[in-house]
Amino acid sequence: MEATGLIVEYNPFHNGHVYHIKEAKKATNANCTIAVMSGSFLQRGEPAIIDKYHRTKAALKSGIDIVLELPYAFAVQNSDIFAHGAVLTLHEIGVSSICFGSESGRISPFLNSYKTYIDKNDLFNTALKMGLAEGKSFPEASRDAYQKIELTSGEIDLSKPNNILGFSYVKAILNNGLPIEPITIKRTNNNFHDQTISSDIASATSIRKRLIEHDVLEAKTEQTMPKETAVQLQAYKNTASFWHHWELYFPILHYRVMTMSTEELAMIHGVDEGLEHRIKKTAIEATSFNQWVTMIKTKRYTWTRIQRLFVHLLTNTTKAEIATFIKLPSVPYVRVLGLNQTGQHYLNKRKKEMEIPILSNIKRNAPPLLKLEERASNAYYSVLSPEARIQAIKQEFKGPVIN
Amino acid sequence: MEATGLIVEYNPFHNGHVYHIKEAKKATNANCTIAVMSGSFLQRGEPAIIDKYHRTKAALKSGIDIVLELPYAFAVQNSDIFAHGAVLTLHEIGVSSICFGSESGRISPFLNSYKTYIDKNDLFNTALKMGLAEGKSFPEASRDAYQKIELTSGEIDLSKPNNILGFSYVKAILNNGLPIEPITIKRTNNNFHDQTISSDIASATSIRKRLIEHDVLEAKTEQTMPKETAVQLQAYKNTASFWHHWELYFPILHYRVMTMSTEELAMIHGVDEGLEHRIKKTAIEATSFNQWVTMIKTKRYTWTRIQRLFVHLLTNTTKAEIATFIKLPSVPYVRVLGLNQTGQHYLNKRKKEMEIPILSNIKRNAPPLLKLEERASNAYYSVLSPEARIQAIKQEFKGPVIN
Repeated sequence: MEATGLIVEYNPFHNGHVYHIKEAKKATNANCTIAVMSGSFLQRGEPAIIDKYHRTKAALKSGIDIVLELPYAFAVQNSDIFAHGAVLTLHEIGVSSICFGSESGRISPFLNSYKTYIDKNDLFNTALKMGLAEGKSFPEASRDAYQKIELTSGEIDLSKPNNILGFSYVKAILNNGLPIEPITIKRTNNNFHDQTISSDIASATSIRKRLIEHDVLEAKTEQTMPKETAVQLQAYKNTASFWHHWELYFPILHYRVMTMSTEELAMIHGVDEGLEHRIKKTAIEATSFNQWVTMIKTKRYTWTRIQRLFVHLLTNTTKAEIATFIKLPSVPYVRVLGLNQTGQHYLNKRKKEMEIPILSNIKRNAPPLLKLEERASNAYYSVLSPEARIQAIKQEFKGPVIN
Repeated sequence: MEATGLIVEYNPFHNGHVYHIKEAKKATNANCTIAVMSGSFLQRGEPAIIDKYHRTKAALKSGIDIVLELPYAFAVQNSDIFAHGAVLTLHEIGVSSICFGSESGRISPFLNSYKTYIDKNDLFNTALKMGLAEGKSFPEASRDAYQKIELTSGEIDLSKPNNILGFSYVKAILNNGLPIEPITIKRTNNNFHDQTISSDIASATSIRKRLIEHDVLEAKTEQTMPKETAVQLQAYKNTASFWHHWELYFPILHYRVMTMSTEELAMIHGVDEGLEHRIKKTAIEATSFNQWVTMIKTKRYTWTRIQRLFVHLLTNTTKAEIATFIKLPSVPYVRVLGLNQTGQHYLNKRKKEMEIPILSNIKRNAPPLLKLEERASNAYYSVLSPEARIQAIKQEFKGPVIN
């Protein structure tokens, strides 16, 4: 059997994702489709709108054979660390290709850009460092460094966030010398950051926005997703009584900051360059999550960067912990969130060749990376009623979702 | 001018307290009455029903001239540490006597018991240690140790909680060799732990219980307190929308435990003897504060002890911090929460003789003991709405309450 890998968040799973899976199957000989998915929190530093199990169920009904969890330590990170963790996970599970979306749908520009990037690596790194030293944000400094080595004017424009993510996947494969073919699929449209739903192919951002604002599942929203996503969104809401978003976490996040010293705050992953003082100072007058981030935000500290550090604060994740995990040369386990029969066949064969364990639930003596995952889920579910929370957390100790 | 000191919680201020102040004035030549009062959290490990400023206002209207804050580090502690902090504070402010309530109203039994306690100190300490080693709770082991040196069958029975507190005051005065006369006043009745209101002299416990359960101020409750207490209770509730009690803090307390490692939990003051494992284990199924404490409670770990450690957990107070503070030979400052003109005259004279500062508000570079106080208040107010919380916290940075 041959498998292809997708790197996803499915927050929530929508029509664009259906298209991506179909095209990935067309573009490869794979008879098994494996998605590695963020868990409770997402790359841009947000709680997932519904939990990972409900997102897994939706994916399994729409063409994915195995859903793996991207460990928290890689998931809530910049694109390079995110890609590194996702690619290493897919490598362990034995995919022969990874399919990702891009504007052009052509892989050669990514490969050519990688060659330039390696050839001019010293120049790139110097420009990046200088940019950061000048007080630029990381995305801004990266963009300028890509410009310096002429990767913003060629075949792919590495000042565009989507291209940067794709380029991170290519870098992770090639940097690690992995036997994985990078494949890219043309996006159906380029509405990645659209704020409103305008057709049945809509951005996840616009879908989430409408769900949270209207607090019900309307026809306009349902048209953008497979039926199963709507089922899972509704099922999760029936027990949780809401869809997750940052404002729900504001009281506990704020409480934490108000009872921590600046020294403790500075130990949290992502709280760098004296940001602890800015967070403490603004906390006194903060009345909502969005208002608080607005107060902290500057040219240098982007909204996403602040959201990410707030996730790490919420989950009590320190710099020391993350440093240990992201230095690992490979992932210590692969965690299966869910699978179907095809996935089961694939895994039965694959596991004989693997040197690391395939896990599904959290057990006693779980590896530290999985203990961190448990803590992240505990934080994620902390806004539920006690009864709903007890039910939700139990899933972490059960087997995978079976479709 | 001569001052007498009272050690109080005023949670809330009631008719029994009015009687205590009157009798204290009769029993001394004092023309200034100074109360040292717990702040946001109380000796038995509970949030105060209304904040310290509203409790201060009530006290100033009913015969107290100066209200001092008992620092958090001493307030939420066993009776010996509580008494030590309170007596040291009253000593710095220059009281010549301390008046406390007791069953008998006679001081000689306390002084005689102290003599026996010193004479048989080795025997007492050995018995106490043995009791604890056998798995008895601290109160139980103390009671048995007092029995061993025959202090439970004489003039005062040191197996009674009230007598133990009075005895702690006497010990703190005499151990520290302070020029303070201990005076005791006969309690009006011995209903200290009554659960229901049966007359206009009722226990603070029964008053709080009725306030929380009925959520309104009724005539039956009002009869137990001076008018000013009713005014302050209502004023606080008008802004906070509730009277404080433990259940309000359950979600954030629970969240904290769910995102802490057992190692971090074991660093919290009061989490001893592997209790961190018990707390973590029970957290999974906990649905309310009271149910959770019931799950943790054993013969050895009393309800009060668990409540106290939960306060320290809520305020993020570590063993290391507390160890520094309670080893201090004297208090580093005296904090005035409120005063009247008599109090002001007294302080003007007294401050010339003092070697430590008299503070009222929290400023930059506050001493660590006061920084801890600020953190405790932040935790206390964390259950308020953002708007009410901002207003409440501002008081910490203002001057004292003036009557």
